[in-house]
Formats: sequence, structure tokens, C-alpha cells
Amino acid sequence: MHKEILEDIGEKELINRLGKFMPKNQISDDCALIRTKNKNLLVNTDSLVENVHFNDITICPGDLGWKAVVSNISDLLSSGSKKTIGITISLVLPSRTEWIWVEELYKGINKALKEYGGVILGGDCSKGNEKIISITAFGIQGELELRRNACKPGDIILTTGIHGLSKLGFLIQNKTNFDKKFSLNERLIAKSVEHFCRPRVYPNFLNNLLKTRSNKKIKRIGCTDSSDGLFQALQDLASASKCKAIINYEKMPKDKDWPQGDKWDGYYFYGGEDYELVFSLPKKWAKNLTKLDKDINEIGFFADGEPSIVFKESNKNKLLNKTPFKHF
Amino acid sequence: MHKEILEDIGEKELINRLGKFMPKNQISDDCALIRTKNKNLLVNTDSLVENVHFNDITICPGDLGWKAVVSNISDLLSSGSKKTIGITISLVLPSRTEWIWVEELYKGINKALKEYGGVILGGDCSKGNEKIISITAFGIQGELELRRNACKPGDIILTTGIHGLSKLGFLIQNKTNFDKKFSLNERLIAKSVEHFCRPRVYPNFLNNLLKTRSNKKIKRIGCTDSSDGLFQALQDLASASKCKAIINYEKMPKDKDWPQGDKWDGYYFYGGEDYELVFSLPKKWAKNLTKLDKDINEIGFFADGEPSIVFKESNKNKLLNKTPFKHF
Repeated sequence: MHKEILEDIGEKELINRLGKFMPKNQISDDCALIRTKNKNLLVNTDSLVENVHFNDITICPGDLGWKAVVSNISDLLSSGSKKTIGITISLVLPSRTEWIWVEELYKGINKALKEYGGVILGGDCSKGNEKIISITAFGIQGELELRRNACKPGDIILTTGIHGLSKLGFLIQNKTNFDKKFSLNERLIAKSVEHFCRPRVYPNFLNNLLKTRSNKKIKRIGCTDSSDGLFQALQDLASASKCKAIINYEKMPKDKDWPQGDKWDGYYFYGGEDYELVFSLPKKWAKNLTKLDKDINEIGFFADGEPSIVFKESNKNKLLNKTPFKHF
Repeated sequence: MHKEILEDIGEKELINRLGKFMPKNQISDDCALIRTKNKNLLVNTDSLVENVHFNDITICPGDLGWKAVVSNISDLLSSGSKKTIGITISLVLPSRTEWIWVEELYKGINKALKEYGGVILGGDCSKGNEKIISITAFGIQGELELRRNACKPGDIILTTGIHGLSKLGFLIQNKTNFDKKFSLNERLIAKSVEHFCRPRVYPNFLNNLLKTRSNKKIKRIGCTDSSDGLFQALQDLASASKCKAIINYEKMPKDKDWPQGDKWDGYYFYGGEDYELVFSLPKKWAKNLTKLDKDINEIGFFADGEPSIVFKESNKNKLLNKTPFKHF
């Protein structure tokens, strides 16, 4: 009998299958939700595994701690968390790990918490063959529910920033040799490494959304983050909301020195770990928001149709055949 | 320069050092506490690492899932959780893992949740070289706060059940050869394997505590669980509460066929993973409770003095020199 292993199944199908073990009313989203009388808590767990998500060459422990916190807060924000309460930390570490590594990791963790709010609530530590940092973050659900399944046909698709930088930063840290004709400039190199090692999130995002809301009756909007890449984010929104994303390649916000070509488009759309928010709003609201926050850009719209992504520029649809960001 | 590694530091010292990164008002206990207006949430994370906490020889995935849930619920109960809300599951799995293994794990997880309450709230899954099951469990803090630091001189020390069985079960599953003269009987073998693979907790414990409370003003009692062994539990209570535990060897509840001798005493006191509660109560309350619940036994008392453990039977103090249960 053929034994079915996870490599054959793939990450997305695995998540689908695990879904059948969960209650039907549970949100299938970036965060889990705990309902209490006065306020609802958002909970998110993210694990960083050595040699899958990081290694000692590409990132130092201080940056890793920062990034582990930020990747969790990004998920909280993309569900509409108005405040981060705190985190618990579950570490798995080989017994030969140096104490100074752990200390630097925690300094990075606390630096991010100081920046974005929240405290360390608790944690545990176990021995293992590879380092794993698993953080569970707790936030308070704000007035607006941001959910993957809340996009609507007619909504404008927006994003908070530039994609692909983190992937480029990773490649630079990994000492990848680039084709010489690109001759990346120093500014882009520094910016990309910064994006990879010290990604940032936008705690003001929720306030700006509320400030610019065109219709107070709208309580839910479609949103996720681009931690697994921009295309994965768009695919997740389209699948959960059962509509079709039409993307305008020309409108994509890119760094002014970002090289052209399919390889660089690949980094841009499939790179991952940018932690930009990808979301959808009614037209008027989108217009108000992009006026208020110049870093936010329209990149397309949702339409009726099979859950899928297409480019407005049909010659760009070949980009969609790339293998998505995956961990299995 | 000598590089200090975790193996040199040890688990307890590591936890102490990590404590300095946490806010002072955070409970240093089995669980973290999230304060909300109406009710306080208890949060606990426990990770099970392949070849540290389990392997494919000693435990099947269904039992592992059950045990991962129970070890978390045990921590919630030992902090006074009156209800388990649910859990999030963070898995790290090698890509060659069979799907059926994951399915059986989840069946075991849901079996335990059906038994003790709670649902799967969410989770994530990453690739790694070794299997890791990290569960975060959420409970509601009940009226009584059970804390490691709430034991008082004069309190009676009690425990909910028999220790050492889980360790024996592990050794049996691991096909350890025992000295023939012990000739373990079939009943004890089956019971020990059951304790190791399918440990149980006592959701009625809190109700029985409330029913038998001698003085309604008492809101805090000293408690932890014996997941790291009975001695470690007593040491944690004594250290956190700054008092001395005087243990009565003769009163220890043992299986009627439990063999005698230092080796077996070692399994009993240092075995770990029994998930029995170890706690302290004022005399009258202790008497009421042991009358109501025949499985609960007095095993000693707390006195003024340096945080430490001594036996009433001084010839048993040699047992205290054993290396404690450790994972580094």
C-alpha cells in the first residue's frame, strides 16, 4: 500500500485536512478567536524552525527575536487587533546552544514588544536537535473584524507597502550571486536586509481604517498579511471570500531601483516574510484611505467568479504558474 | 573565553535567567495569566519533542495527542482553572511524516478534549527534522487561585494519587530489562503503561476543594502538578513559597505491588509525567477533603525554614541526592 506522506500532500492540503478536526464555527483565518463577555481575544501562534525559516548565517539572534514577535503581531493586526496584550514563548534548543544566543534572542523579543506593545506572559523551554522559536501572541479584537473571507466583488484590493524586499534581503544575507548586470545599489541592499532582519508592521493601520470609513455599518473587511508571499495572500483572500482577484501589474508599488524581469517578479510575488497587509475595501473607503496614507496602494479589485487570480495585463499571467511559497 | 552553553546551565537556572526578561508582576507558575474585566484567563504552553519526550517505540500517535492535551490541562487545573476553553496546536513535522500519523494524533487530541472539555481554536504546521507538538491551552480562572507560592508553614501537603507509574510504563514500553526477582505482575504492568500512554487528570478536584473549604476567606492555596516528578513539584512549592517541606515516607500512596528498594523509590520520586496534583491546605480543610476523596493522601506538611525537602524518616534523606528530572 502506498503510504501518503506530508511532502506529497503539501501545506495547504494539510491545513484543509486538519480543519475537519476543528469546530465549524471556528474562524479559519490568521488568528483564532476566544469569545469573552466584554471583549474577544485574538490568538496567534507562529513557529520559526532552524534551517527552514532561519539559520545562523542569515540572521542574528537579536533580529530573530524581533522577527518572531513581529510575524505574530502582523497576524494579530491582519485580524483587526487593536492592542497586543502579550506573548508566550515556547523554545526548543539543542543543549549545546550558547546562553548568549538565548539572551540576545530575548533582547530582540523585548525590543519588538517595547515598540509594538505587549509583555512576555510566560513560556517553556525544551531540549531538541534544532532550534525552534514558537510564539503565541494575544491581542484584543477591535471594532473592525478583519477576516480573509470578508472580501466582496467590487472591492478594491490594496496593500500597505512594497513586496519582495525581504526575499532579496534573505538572498543577500545568504551571499547569493546575482547576475552582474543588475548591480544592486547600496541603498536597496541595505533596505532589503533591513526588511528581512527587522520587518515592521503598522499599528496605525486600524486607526486609519476607522478614520476613513465611508459607511459606519461596515464592520468586516477582507484582510490577511503577506507573510507567505503576495500571491499566497491574494489566493487566500480569493479562496476564503469566493471571488476573483484582478490584479493590475502596473500599479504594484515597487522600490524605484527594483530590477525588471521574471526572476525579480518572482521574488516580488512569491517572496514571503514581508508582513505587508493585503486587504480589500469598498471604492470610496479605499480612496479616502490612500489619500490619508501615501504608503497604501491600490493594486486591483475583486470580481464575481471562480476563486482565482488574473492579471489585467494578460501577458503577465505566466507569472501565476510559479510554485507558491511552501514549507513542505 | 569559555562559552557558556545550556547544558552547563541546566533547565532551572535557564528558567531563572529568562525570568529577568519578564515583567515582575507576572506569575512565575505553571500558567500565565491574562487579566480581563469579567474573568481571568489562564494560558499554558507545553511542547513535546521527539526523542526527548517521546518516540515512535514508546507511544503511538493517538496516545501522544491525548497526552499532549492532558499535560496542558493538568497545568491549567493546577492553577485553578474551572473550565478549559480550548487549545491551539503548533506542529513541527518532517516532510516524510505519514498523513495517518497526523490523523491519529488529532484523533487522540480530540478524544482528550471530548473527555475534559475544550475545542481546537487554531494552529499552524511547519517542516522540521524532528516532530514537535506544541499545545497552548486556555482556561478560565476559578474562584480559588492555585499557585506555587501560596503554601504556608503549618499547611498539610497532599497529593491526588500514586507516583512513579508513568516512569515504569515508559520503561516497559522501552523494553527495559528489570531484575528478575521483581517479577512485575500483569496488573501493575498494564496500569503503568496506561498511566504513561493515557494519563488522566481530575476535573472534579476544584469542586471538591470548594465543597470542603473550612474557611471561605481563603482564596489562594499552594499547588503544582508532578509532571516533572514528585520531588521537583515539592521543590518548586518550597522554593516559591519559601518554606520547608517535611515529607512522611510511610504515608506515600504506592501501588500495592510496587517493589521496594532505592531504584524503585527513585522512579517514584523522580519519575515525572504522572500529572498528579501536589498541593497544600490548612489542617481542617485537608481532613475534610481526604474524607470526601479517598484517592487524595496526606504526605507531609510545610514548616518554617530554608526552602528545602526533608524526610520525617531521616534514613530516607539519601533519596534526595538523586539528579532531578531534567531535559537539558
